[in-house]
Amino acid sequence: MSLGTSEAFDLRPDYIINVIRKLGAKTVGFQFPEGLKRKGPKLAKKIEEATGAEVLISGDPCFGACDLDRTLLEHVDILFHFGHAELEDTKLSDKVYFIETRSAVDIRPVVEKAVPELKGQIIGLITTVQHVHKLPDACAVLETSGKTCVIGRGDSRIAYPGQVLGCNFSVARDEVCDEYLYIGSGDFHPLGVALSTKKRVLAADPFSGEVREVDPSRVLRQRSAVIAKSLDARVFGIIVSSKNGQERMKLASSLKESAEKHGKEAYLILIDLVTPDQLLQFKVDAFVNTACPRLAVDEVGRFPSPMLTPQEFEIVLGEREWEKLVLDEITEEPV
Amino acid sequence: MSLGTSEAFDLRPDYIINVIRKLGAKTVGFQFPEGLKRKGPKLAKKIEEATGAEVLISGDPCFGACDLDRTLLEHVDILFHFGHAELEDTKLSDKVYFIETRSAVDIRPVVEKAVPELKGQIIGLITTVQHVHKLPDACAVLETSGKTCVIGRGDSRIAYPGQVLGCNFSVARDEVCDEYLYIGSGDFHPLGVALSTKKRVLAADPFSGEVREVDPSRVLRQRSAVIAKSLDARVFGIIVSSKNGQERMKLASSLKESAEKHGKEAYLILIDLVTPDQLLQFKVDAFVNTACPRLAVDEVGRFPSPMLTPQEFEIVLGEREWEKLVLDEITEEPV
Repeated sequence: MSLGTSEAFDLRPDYIINVIRKLGAKTVGFQFPEGLKRKGPKLAKKIEEATGAEVLISGDPCFGACDLDRTLLEHVDILFHFGHAELEDTKLSDKVYFIETRSAVDIRPVVEKAVPELKGQIIGLITTVQHVHKLPDACAVLETSGKTCVIGRGDSRIAYPGQVLGCNFSVARDEVCDEYLYIGSGDFHPLGVALSTKKRVLAADPFSGEVREVDPSRVLRQRSAVIAKSLDARVFGIIVSSKNGQERMKLASSLKESAEKHGKEAYLILIDLVTPDQLLQFKVDAFVNTACPRLAVDEVGRFPSPMLTPQEFEIVLGEREWEKLVLDEITEEPV
Repeated sequence: MSLGTSEAFDLRPDYIINVIRKLGAKTVGFQFPEGLKRKGPKLAKKIEEATGAEVLISGDPCFGACDLDRTLLEHVDILFHFGHAELEDTKLSDKVYFIETRSAVDIRPVVEKAVPELKGQIIGLITTVQHVHKLPDACAVLETSGKTCVIGRGDSRIAYPGQVLGCNFSVARDEVCDEYLYIGSGDFHPLGVALSTKKRVLAADPFSGEVREVDPSRVLRQRSAVIAKSLDARVFGIIVSSKNGQERMKLASSLKESAEKHGKEAYLILIDLVTPDQLLQFKVDAFVNTACPRLAVDEVGRFPSPMLTPQEFEIVLGEREWEKLVLDEITEEPV
């Protein structure tokens, strides 16, 4: 909180200044997710005044550590990527420093509020990188209340025990528990855990103080509708991301082969920013998205044709049972 | 016109098939500008059936040869870039083939229609790559009518004599003439030539058959208004493109230095797709755009703050006279 521009998250300006001075960097890149972008100019000014380095800010949208600005990387001596933890397979270069923007908010009150809502004895804890350093606090509250807490390690894409990504719930699968307690904002992460594990998930938001049980039934109905609409599709556009940590070309190629084996037409489309407008250019009966797994779910109904996940496409082709419908993930092992 | 999908432009499928077979390419990239993107899947199917290669289509917006899909290039053995001529400094790799999609339309009728509207004796011809092979036809019509025609060479960024780009009017400056005849669609190219040369430009559209005199006064008024609105600006966002043929980092850095010398604040923003929405993230008094020179003019009034060209920024700082206002270009020598 040493920087006035940051109300809730620590941008670590002193650390950044030290790194720049130590390495003698002359040009420095900043990459922020959308929620933090507005803090860029003020932080840049502070850093330029303190170090004499020239700061170059990435103006493109940024959705995760999977979405490192590679062109910016070519132009700078070091790149600070804010708001996300390093993904083992996406660091790309030793020139990249991840500033995780940890939250200072106290998570204990909302965990205390959640305790009476918990039904099980063994509680699996899950959270995002912003609160991951506070999980011991949550454990302490739970254990004081007579519960047992477990925190999973997850696969190699996960930087910290207990951390879930929008595209990786492996931590939850590692946690042998009766139910889950998610600490953080937003619906997507706890929803993914509920769909992946079929267990009850309670979500506790330390900013709003709200505690609620996650209900995956609406998303399941939406996904079933997308699959149903695609059953008669003949021409598929298979989307491959050009983002470093989202690119699944091999998967896309194998889906294309499967499609052709079943007498369907399929085209591979490599794309950076997948938007409804941009996909208007492609006249297909359905899209299959191998880019960010959240897209098909978060933007359901907004694309010019139904958008399937790879697992849903397998259901359409008759290669996976409807009962085995899960959210798509980018993990070490296929889901 | 050998491909059914192409009404007006030649996508050269037979040439593409020959290149793929000759090189034994296994994976092939296609990149189209927006107006041709819908032809991608049908052409991909034809090429895949004929060669057995796997085609990967770029889904990102594409605005010129300046905008080569470098990630696609990493994934393919060869890349066919449609709709633009090679720019000497932007080819990047021998793996790239430019398919210029020449138009088959006969330009003689519209040139005949233009002759009575011409006031001078020596006529400078200018056009886009789609019609550049037809300039001898235009010359013949003019000379039959007693005029003299000149066709300039342009600088090193220009592939063909007589060709103008939205960001390069060097061909016109090479043409010693009384007035210009532009053959093609759209207002931007002839407008740029009128502003660059201060001479009369007649535009003849071979598709619509329309002939009209270009009037740069409205754009000049708009540019003056943008400059006037920026005179009191204190904080500037200087935009640098991450596209291979639009990146002018040195220019951007020197503009930042100039700004600071004049007691202004300036931030460098590296960005791929410059849109009004994306710039909403940056709270500045004015933007200075070193990316595609057309942006500031084509999208005037749509950005969250006034957007200046580099030359207009010089006027704001008092380093260039108002009378020396020209459209920005990306050329060998600064304009």
